[in-house]
Amino acid sequence: MTEHVLSVALDDAYRLITHGPTVLVSARHSGVDDVMAAAWACALDFSPPRLTVVLDKITRTRELIEASGEFVIQIPTVAQARLEHEVGSRSLHQDPDKLQNCGVELLRFDGFDQPFVAGASAWLACRLIPEVRNQETYDLFIGEVVGAWADARAFSDGRWRYEHADPVWRSLHHVAGGHFYTIGDALDVPLTQR
Amino acid sequence: MTEHVLSVALDDAYRLITHGPTVLVSARHSGVDDVMAAAWACALDFSPPRLTVVLDKITRTRELIEASGEFVIQIPTVAQARLEHEVGSRSLHQDPDKLQNCGVELLRFDGFDQPFVAGASAWLACRLIPEVRNQETYDLFIGEVVGAWADARAFSDGRWRYEHADPVWRSLHHVAGGHFYTIGDALDVPLTQR
Repeated sequence: MTEHVLSVALDDAYRLITHGPTVLVSARHSGVDDVMAAAWACALDFSPPRLTVVLDKITRTRELIEASGEFVIQIPTVAQARLEHEVGSRSLHQDPDKLQNCGVELLRFDGFDQPFVAGASAWLACRLIPEVRNQETYDLFIGEVVGAWADARAFSDGRWRYEHADPVWRSLHHVAGGHFYTIGDALDVPLTQR
Repeated sequence: MTEHVLSVALDDAYRLITHGPTVLVSARHSGVDDVMAAAWACALDFSPPRLTVVLDKITRTRELIEASGEFVIQIPTVAQARLEHEVGSRSLHQDPDKLQNCGVELLRFDGFDQPFVAGASAWLACRLIPEVRNQETYDLFIGEVVGAWADARAFSDGRWRYEHADPVWRSLHHVAGGHFYTIGDALDVPLTQR
């Protein structure tokens, strides 16, 4: 399952989310794992790499993050569209078997005791930077990326390779309800000569 | 130029940016207008609609926003890819004719004294919610959306219509340098029956 997974340099980690994909957020605390969907995740800094993610107070994942101080952001693929939508529509509060019922399989990465969702195109292991006012007032969480990996079939040499990959590897971009767009064509813009 | 521009209900404003497009940020203060590119903008709340945007301290646009307490987020199109990259590569500090040199034309919307970039697919007029710690520590700015508009050729009845529109209307999703992806195909995911 992990034969194609490569480590990504932390200085390149922002490239995994700068194009604005919908993500999966996962966390672990005291033997409990949860995974949720989040459309509102965004890069915040290059070095150290940081990101923001909006986490509603009703989610069990948020509670696990607040308790553990850690979380994982992963970039789901077209092949995971149903999984993305299912984990975003069920709560571990109501369904203790949520992950199994949503078809989530977890991976282990050496040195990180966090739940990584198998089949994603990339994973960013984050340490929560506690900012109580942001969390309480805006549901806004800041993480520092402390580990990054990608599936080489979708991302290699510091770049997404969507234009060369099987379309099932494309990222998801949520609009509302179960309505998504996938990422599309590459577009390279040369600067005008000065 | 504005014959296709329709007002968007504030409760639908989050739908304009939830799919993670790269944006143009514009601001006006004391007769000075500037426009910059930003890949790191994100929805923050539904109602009232709020968003975040990361603004580097070196940008003139940030100074104008801090002085005026207002800014506009607009969603550029494939047809504006060069404009997007040019305004992101030049500074008003060095080039007082930056907007003209980048081919930026401005629109007026009644009741809003802010610079709206012509040709965009959508515009979100924002009031800065001052959060000094976020601004100084993380370059992170929060805005409340107080007006929203879209070009009906790209967005209507509360939804993006990329799958039916001319491809020049598609949104841009930045990766690094002058390398973008455009938004791609629609993907609708039905939930499993419970």
